[in-house]
Amino acid sequence: MQPEEFRHRAHALVDWMADYLRDVGSLPVTPAVHPGEIRDRLPVAAPDRGEPFPRIFDDFRHLILPGMTHWNHPGWFGYFPANNSPPSILAEMLTATLGAQCMSWATSPAATELEQTTMAWLAGMLRLPPGFTGVIQDTASTATLTALLSARECAAEGTRTVYASEEAHSSVDKGVKLAGYGLEQLRRIPTDTNFAMNPAALDRQLTDDRRAGLVPACVVATVGTTSSTAIDPLPAIGEICRRHGVWLHVDAAYAGTAAIVPELRAMLDGVEHADSFVFNPHKWMLVNFDCTAYFVRDVPALLRTFQITPEYLRTSADDGAVNFRDWGIPLGRRFRALKLWFVIRSYGLEGLREMVRRHVALGTAFAGWVEADPEFELLAPAPLGLVVFRHRPAGMTDAAALDAHNAALLARVNATRRVHLTHTRLGGRYAIRLAVGQRCTGAAEVALAWDIVREARNQVVAGS
Amino acid sequence: MQPEEFRHRAHALVDWMADYLRDVGSLPVTPAVHPGEIRDRLPVAAPDRGEPFPRIFDDFRHLILPGMTHWNHPGWFGYFPANNSPPSILAEMLTATLGAQCMSWATSPAATELEQTTMAWLAGMLRLPPGFTGVIQDTASTATLTALLSARECAAEGTRTVYASEEAHSSVDKGVKLAGYGLEQLRRIPTDTNFAMNPAALDRQLTDDRRAGLVPACVVATVGTTSSTAIDPLPAIGEICRRHGVWLHVDAAYAGTAAIVPELRAMLDGVEHADSFVFNPHKWMLVNFDCTAYFVRDVPALLRTFQITPEYLRTSADDGAVNFRDWGIPLGRRFRALKLWFVIRSYGLEGLREMVRRHVALGTAFAGWVEADPEFELLAPAPLGLVVFRHRPAGMTDAAALDAHNAALLARVNATRRVHLTHTRLGGRYAIRLAVGQRCTGAAEVALAWDIVREARNQVVAGS
Repeated sequence: MQPEEFRHRAHALVDWMADYLRDVGSLPVTPAVHPGEIRDRLPVAAPDRGEPFPRIFDDFRHLILPGMTHWNHPGWFGYFPANNSPPSILAEMLTATLGAQCMSWATSPAATELEQTTMAWLAGMLRLPPGFTGVIQDTASTATLTALLSARECAAEGTRTVYASEEAHSSVDKGVKLAGYGLEQLRRIPTDTNFAMNPAALDRQLTDDRRAGLVPACVVATVGTTSSTAIDPLPAIGEICRRHGVWLHVDAAYAGTAAIVPELRAMLDGVEHADSFVFNPHKWMLVNFDCTAYFVRDVPALLRTFQITPEYLRTSADDGAVNFRDWGIPLGRRFRALKLWFVIRSYGLEGLREMVRRHVALGTAFAGWVEADPEFELLAPAPLGLVVFRHRPAGMTDAAALDAHNAALLARVNATRRVHLTHTRLGGRYAIRLAVGQRCTGAAEVALAWDIVREARNQVVAGS
Repeated sequence: MQPEEFRHRAHALVDWMADYLRDVGSLPVTPAVHPGEIRDRLPVAAPDRGEPFPRIFDDFRHLILPGMTHWNHPGWFGYFPANNSPPSILAEMLTATLGAQCMSWATSPAATELEQTTMAWLAGMLRLPPGFTGVIQDTASTATLTALLSARECAAEGTRTVYASEEAHSSVDKGVKLAGYGLEQLRRIPTDTNFAMNPAALDRQLTDDRRAGLVPACVVATVGTTSSTAIDPLPAIGEICRRHGVWLHVDAAYAGTAAIVPELRAMLDGVEHADSFVFNPHKWMLVNFDCTAYFVRDVPALLRTFQITPEYLRTSADDGAVNFRDWGIPLGRRFRALKLWFVIRSYGLEGLREMVRRHVALGTAFAGWVEADPEFELLAPAPLGLVVFRHRPAGMTDAAALDAHNAALLARVNATRRVHLTHTRLGGRYAIRLAVGQRCTGAAEVALAWDIVREARNQVVAGS
């Protein structure tokens, strides 16, 4: 395809893209397909001859699109959001066109320096204390593994142990396993009634493990847990980590974005004790996935863990410049700083704060409706737009029955395909999660979600 | 930014993008900047207020672009290519617009199934034997780490060892370190005169290590080494791995694409012995970075290594569908199959073969010029478009002097900014690498590179 054909095709795509951004709210949030259905419609082998682009684009619209879950639908309340935004999409268009490989400073100088700049901007926006240096990684899972590997590198020899609350994300389990600690060396610390880590329990476990001759290597504290956005108390945990000489990694994957709002920044108090910190601009900060911001205090420890420099990667700039390939697992790296730069500049700090405030207020409103209805139960505080609740019909007290009832209710809600919510277990109970955080979600969609939940309640009660 | 403003801005970007694709060859391949220069021109803090998009795009063109290395310049001969192509860019535009999160089947059904389909297409295109299942990962470094982690999971308890040739990529060292084997457990097997692994030496080392009570866990064979595209003999290595019961991982990161050409497929003979296989469509197959194809035989072993399923990630489709989040390190995943689909369909198998044949022929031509010039020395065979050579002026015999002389020559070549070549060490010698593989590189650019090399030779000789 020559540049002029590309120009022609790309203009057509742009019109489709703008239409999609405008109209996505009118599509079903999730597709009505069963596993294997789409694959069955696709040829089993690659074509020998090239095909004209219009045919390929037609197939995208008629075979692929109807099988997609629309994460950027205003009725998206599942998991945590994976937002994109028009400025971020524009940046991705340029990144794809340059096709630059940002492994070393010399292989993409401007990309490396824009990454340094935007990471410093983020540190300032979150008011991280001085001493943190940032790098973009793909996901928080990878960043947490990076922290666990660095902590392993810094720990004494012996049987090393890792600590996280019962509510910490599954990426901690995965990282502990992959980094070779062994899952049996992960201590799950109990939480309080708000599902935040109990620091006294952490202190006791660390003390006991030391006495038993183990080597505590890393504590993972969570700011904004996946199930309920619980906030582990960083000041107390940080003090304990310092006293025990243990690496403290703070996982604020979702909630980190909210720390740009002054009245919400208190959740990061104590982050000055952290050795590493991660949050995902690709969740709530309108930056296309993937863009994880990983901040670390001891850069030499990071480099000791990851740096390998064969002759064919040496450049004349190695002494005076940062080579981000040594700051994580992959060698090759996309130019991800560009979308961060476009988004922060397009919205400005105030624009991003306004969005966070709007989402949090909408979550608070929904939580209020849940609390005001005697048949519904709020299962956790909702400080950051995530509402965790269940339906408790009068007279239904059996735990298993309540779980099954709420699973049926959620299935009914999602079967409308007008909104999409997901679930978790919290304090042993099946819980419905409504995460308000999609860029376009407004009061209308949140009200619609509540209507659909109550309608589904009526149907499930009538049907049971 | 509303959809209509996005439409307007995106159309303007498309024109810039098409111009860039048309004109990139007239830009300097590498920028004339020193470390810190670009960063110094950028504000140290994020703006409070949003800025108009034209200002941001202007800054992209005037601050960022002049600091970029142009990997998709037809004069690009450095490292290995990181090709993009018009159809791949078109796919990236759609991927960015959908912003879908492809961690589970249910979170993006069509993306999961298109990934299965395109991976099966690739397996067919490379004529991989039956029994391999594919998944897209970000980089070959990550895929090799994945293989090393899976091999660790499958190996008996004890001090586990890993084997790779002296010419294997640094990602093997990095993976061995990160997976916790310890670098001291990596055995570098000697190579023959063509820089391919000596299988008899591998067999001896495995036998010796077993006798010493060690647990050989993984052999990494390379098809197309970084320094010279040497091809480890898979039939012999595979037989040895089977006999010793060791996991065989085949790293064909660059060369894998060439296996779609029937007359080059022989390099993969023996791949039927492999437990895992990786190659990068994002290098030579015109697919935008990142897109690594990782094929594995024992899917349950992969899942044992990576699968963690917390309640909040369970879906009703988990029993009947593949959740690719369990096939690698990150939880979140981009919709990367789309660009692979667009590229394979746009070019067709024949179009891609034609490109590989053209690049290989151009590399062969350049190697011929090197051989025909008594002052130049070809340092390795050039079967796949990569030519490794040095200048050896009459009378210069000292090894250190030859190294310094060739480093100076390469610096002169690259200072023209019309072509870009990189270097390596091969058999202890400083060697210049010319990798022919950029999509737009033709006979004119290869001839220009040879002219520039000879002109630089004259200058260095005159100056020394």
